[in-house]
Amino acid sequence: MLVRLRQGLASPELDPLLALCEELGYSARFLDEGRRLLELSGCGDRTHRTRLEDHPDVVEVVDAGDSHELHAQADGRQDTVVRVGDAAFGGGHVAIAAGPCSVEDYDRLLRLALGVQECGVSILRAGAFKPRTSPYSFQGLGVVGLEMLAAVRAETGISIVTEVLDPREVERVAEVADWIQIGTRSSTNFPLLTEVGRAGKPILLKRGFGATVREFLLSAEYVLDTGNEEVVLCERGVRGFDSTTRNVLDVGAVAHLRTATHLPVIVDPSHAAGRADLVRPLARAGLAAGADGLIVEVHDDPSSAKSDGEQAISLEELGALTRDAQDLVSLDGRVLSMESDRSAPHTSSAKEPIQ
Amino acid sequence: MLVRLRQGLASPELDPLLALCEELGYSARFLDEGRRLLELSGCGDRTHRTRLEDHPDVVEVVDAGDSHELHAQADGRQDTVVRVGDAAFGGGHVAIAAGPCSVEDYDRLLRLALGVQECGVSILRAGAFKPRTSPYSFQGLGVVGLEMLAAVRAETGISIVTEVLDPREVERVAEVADWIQIGTRSSTNFPLLTEVGRAGKPILLKRGFGATVREFLLSAEYVLDTGNEEVVLCERGVRGFDSTTRNVLDVGAVAHLRTATHLPVIVDPSHAAGRADLVRPLARAGLAAGADGLIVEVHDDPSSAKSDGEQAISLEELGALTRDAQDLVSLDGRVLSMESDRSAPHTSSAKEPIQ
Amino acid sequence: MLVRLRQGLASPELDPLLALCEELGYSARFLDEGRRLLELSGCGDRTHRTRLEDHPDVVEVVDAGDSHELHAQADGRQDTVVRVGDAAFGGGHVAIAAGPCSVEDYDRLLRLALGVQECGVSILRAGAFKPRTSPYSFQGLGVVGLEMLAAVRAETGISIVTEVLDPREVERVAEVADWIQIGTRSSTNFPLLTEVGRAGKPILLKRGFGATVREFLLSAEYVLDTGNEEVVLCERGVRGFDSTTRNVLDVGAVAHLRTATHLPVIVDPSHAAGRADLVRPLARAGLAAGADGLIVEVHDDPSSAKSDGEQAISLEELGALTRDAQDLVSLDGRVLSMESDRSAPHTSSAKEPIQ
Amino acid sequence: MLVRLRQGLASPELDPLLALCEELGYSARFLDEGRRLLELSGCGDRTHRTRLEDHPDVVEVVDAGDSHELHAQADGRQDTVVRVGDAAFGGGHVAIAAGPCSVEDYDRLLRLALGVQECGVSILRAGAFKPRTSPYSFQGLGVVGLEMLAAVRAETGISIVTEVLDPREVERVAEVADWIQIGTRSSTNFPLLTEVGRAGKPILLKRGFGATVREFLLSAEYVLDTGNEEVVLCERGVRGFDSTTRNVLDVGAVAHLRTATHLPVIVDPSHAAGRADLVRPLARAGLAAGADGLIVEVHDDPSSAKSDGEQAISLEELGALTRDAQDLVSLDGRVLSMESDRSAPHTSSAKEPIQ
Repeated sequence: MLVRLRQGLASPELDPLLALCEELGYSARFLDEGRRLLELSGCGDRTHRTRLEDHPDVVEVVDAGDSHELHAQADGRQDTVVRVGDAAFGGGHVAIAAGPCSVEDYDRLLRLALGVQECGVSILRAGAFKPRTSPYSFQGLGVVGLEMLAAVRAETGISIVTEVLDPREVERVAEVADWIQIGTRSSTNFPLLTEVGRAGKPILLKRGFGATVREFLLSAEYVLDTGNEEVVLCERGVRGFDSTTRNVLDVGAVAHLRTATHLPVIVDPSHAAGRADLVRPLARAGLAAGADGLIVEVHDDPSSAKSDGEQAISLEELGALTRDAQDLVSLDGRVLSMESDRSAPHTSSAKEPIQ
Repeated sequence: MLVRLRQGLASPELDPLLALCEELGYSARFLDEGRRLLELSGCGDRTHRTRLEDHPDVVEVVDAGDSHELHAQADGRQDTVVRVGDAAFGGGHVAIAAGPCSVEDYDRLLRLALGVQECGVSILRAGAFKPRTSPYSFQGLGVVGLEMLAAVRAETGISIVTEVLDPREVERVAEVADWIQIGTRSSTNFPLLTEVGRAGKPILLKRGFGATVREFLLSAEYVLDTGNEEVVLCERGVRGFDSTTRNVLDVGAVAHLRTATHLPVIVDPSHAAGRADLVRPLARAGLAAGADGLIVEVHDDPSSAKSDGEQAISLEELGALTRDAQDLVSLDGRVLSMESDRSAPHTSSAKEPIQ
Repeated sequence: MLVRLRQGLASPELDPLLALCEELGYSARFLDEGRRLLELSGCGDRTHRTRLEDHPDVVEVVDAGDSHELHAQADGRQDTVVRVGDAAFGGGHVAIAAGPCSVEDYDRLLRLALGVQECGVSILRAGAFKPRTSPYSFQGLGVVGLEMLAAVRAETGISIVTEVLDPREVERVAEVADWIQIGTRSSTNFPLLTEVGRAGKPILLKRGFGATVREFLLSAEYVLDTGNEEVVLCERGVRGFDSTTRNVLDVGAVAHLRTATHLPVIVDPSHAAGRADLVRPLARAGLAAGADGLIVEVHDDPSSAKSDGEQAISLEELGALTRDAQDLVSLDGRVLSMESDRSAPHTSSAKEPIQ
Repeated sequence: MLVRLRQGLASPELDPLLALCEELGYSARFLDEGRRLLELSGCGDRTHRTRLEDHPDVVEVVDAGDSHELHAQADGRQDTVVRVGDAAFGGGHVAIAAGPCSVEDYDRLLRLALGVQECGVSILRAGAFKPRTSPYSFQGLGVVGLEMLAAVRAETGISIVTEVLDPREVERVAEVADWIQIGTRSSTNFPLLTEVGRAGKPILLKRGFGATVREFLLSAEYVLDTGNEEVVLCERGVRGFDSTTRNVLDVGAVAHLRTATHLPVIVDPSHAAGRADLVRPLARAGLAAGADGLIVEVHDDPSSAKSDGEQAISLEELGALTRDAQDLVSLDGRVLSMESDRSAPHTSSAKEPIQ
């Protein structure tokens, strides 16, 4: 490990840092006369980079050596494949989740679930607990919404991804969700990350809209550190200076993450664009940059399909998007998980997934 | 109220929106032939702006009319004064909180509390629960840290501001804290904002480093909506594109907030700068822009005072900062709350607060 | 046209604005009693939106009506196709330009030109005048570099795109370049935009790394306003808060521009990534989002190909990228301009282009 | 000097870099076995940091040693004091420039010059050449505007600061201006920076709204490298993600620059705020952070003074601002240059300045 120190540290000041290095099992030597570069020899541990970075005398860990954090890709390590029902993300597997922003009424939810399945999508996204900027916005149906999701899941066999906001609700959400979402506004809710890690379900972790890639990976590390390895990262746009799109989809981060971590990385083009007409090109861009999947907002209201200002796309547009995705992933020899891949028919498979 | 709608909405599509307007008690009329501008006449309510903004056909509430949200400054309304022990924020009152980043050991904490008081500062900041980007960083002493804070408070009579991260810990933190901090990483933790609002203590709400001013005010609105009016807003720097300083202290937001809300607004120069040498100029800039107070990180380790790379300032520097603050606020006829203002001596007042 | 005014303007204050509206040929009427919304009826002109936006009483032009600026896409208008030698951009035509960052020596430049052509690329990019952040950086070979470009062009028949920095050098650059580049650092150099517009050559206009999409289009408008319609827009990444990639490739802007303007839009993945290993995924993302082409940095130094830290890719990687591009554009029924499309052999065609 | 190299460079690859180090007069040695840290011993030169940073094998110059660039503050070096007429910036001297956005008509310009002088301000700012985002915006009166400025200068004795956009106009502007402005949109117009440096006049260099502090200083370096040492830096707000203010005034950059460079640093609160009501608090914040002066937009139109949406303040407000500035700078023992300091009366001094 190679560590850069603050300038002008005198001998006695350095003692606590050197003691820490010894405690971590390293033998340390200064590389330069100015004592700004410290080389540590010894066996790394996933906590060492953080512990050194946190030391007030350390400016930067220049090279983490073999102190690999749990998210890190390393030589010879295989990509993690996360399975959600019949769908798989990572390691050459690509999948799509789609659904409405929030659960509103049962009939519409069922209709959308069936519509989504017809497009070949086997994961339904819909919020029961909604994180809203204003306290006066609809906060979701809560527990009633979860019950509707459970009923639609039982009826159709579709897998469910839904968000949890509060560590006190993780258990209840985990009973219904096949895949638990941590939203962009919860990406630094560390008690929640720890609680959700223990729920024994795959996690969908959205990047904070103001988070660096390193911060994003360390949020994932909170989940991984609980022993839960089934984490799917989701790039959903970062905040920029231009209001042409709601956020800026960071396709460079997607491409970087594909090599920096063994975890799958998907893209949310709906929240990045904030406009229905740009969802398809952004979804395509994400997949072309290497994303292992998509999560997309859809609606089933034909009247609003014509209008701008909505970020949800129609089921017809989801169909087109799915075909696009098939074309794109096949260029790379990757496979798109499709609902129709299931050998069993809807009716019978619908009985299975719910215990 | 004046509302701008999406383009190209036909008659039947508009019915749900018009029904909502009626339900809210407004009579609506279109201003233009293209039906893009809707004027609503009637009596506003604090929830109406959000409810209209949330409607999918609405692009923007151009003018919220008399639909004032709870944080909003309105004609003739007095500024809210938030009192924390002997200190007061807002309405011409300026105060300072200072202390270490986190509670580490009792003796040091006591020494710092006494040192801070000697500088005239009557509020000690120190974290028992720490939100850390990495799971491998020191997460604070937790309950043990709270106990140390309670003991120092009993010993010195100093007021305590400390952070809470988890809705399940609000009650415990509220027993010790005179002022409960919601950190920048929790600014969109809505369950926590609601829970903390109900704790019956003044709240210190830090701006999310990626939050707009509107989002910041709506986070405050979550607290205010619980009936708790004692909210102090804190600008602590927003994330920018340059790493010269850790964050960019948004003094324009401070100046704007001073007229847009009746709530007091303070500045955290330590987290904005990320460097001890810039804390003093940033503190001065914040006060000159109109801030009602400061929250500052201090340390008591003379050896590290010489070095760069630390954002905590020494007690000597805090003393200089306090004198600066006195000079600056007196230019405006404002008053700085000083520890020495207390008529009772330390020993006797120290017995009181813990009952 | 629909215009929103500042609040609280009294009658005599409004007279200059109303006089301007009349002068522009509009009849104006206020939509609301508060006199904040002004509807203008009459025949639009490309300058009207700006002229109204510039008026101090105007907050916003809500709807520009038929006051189309020159860059704007309008109903029934065909996409502009810009031709650079044998390559074409826009209207279903996709092309690639590739080459070294700067012209350094003739032999290397010739080798790269031939290598690039072998990959099917018919446009060579290389800088003779380099805009450098530091005055102590290599500023390009200047006129000598232009001469080398002219010689390589004569030798190989390849088309040349190269940057101009100074209005006093436009004429000289235009003698050599088939396509004149305005770099990201010159995007608000308005005298240069005007001068280059008059040079009678196609223009490659890079987006300023801190420019909004609207500002980008108005920079193009400076060129278009000289009567030169051959402008290719280039998204090359905007500045963000994370240093994982040098810039953030704004694929949402690419997708938006494809519908907002009739001008072709290409992508520069090299400057967006700042890292060779991310050039290919970003190039793919750009094309999948709808970009009409690419401009890519290549080198011919096999030793540096193995290392990180370089943003230039090797000729082998350019070959792979070109095949990727063919696959991607064929999914949409678009056509990639390839050097091998030329019926005439290199040798003969090389004689032609240079008068 | 301490230099960090790319990872994995083998021996022959390093030869060109080692040759460069030798050429620059350094003896080089590797600090670590991995050959990533190179220590250079020898005598620095202002160009060396850039030349090493530009090398493709170099990741970072960790420590520039004594390779000081011209803008850099160094031990024992005095602050540069830049004089514009009777006003002085830097080294404890603070001054204000004020005036309209652009020159529009002579009578108004004269009235404003006299009004500004009455407030104690001895420098008039006004644009004859205006950089405008849209080609259809008023581009300034150009040469006619310069003539008006010259006439007002002759009439009142006020000093003139005005912007130049085009290297071909530098000479003409320099004939009239006491202080030549390079605007935010020209901060990377390197031919202009070089040309203006040679004009023999003090320079006002505005920070690019998307420029890092390092880039800002290197733009100044272009001027300094021509031998012109009279450069005043101006922080005028950087682009952020929130539209509450037009830009974010980076007071941390001001505080940093005060120690990093010997050049004076002023603040433009008008362009940072974009709103007249925030100009005063931002001006105060800038001075409190250590700025050596202000440049402020004023108007003389009493009717518009009441309205929001304008960034220019009235002459009355300028008077208040000037008194604020006096109070603030006197707290630090600094001196505000005031028009009334001039011993000679207006009439006589007015004859002098024009050759």
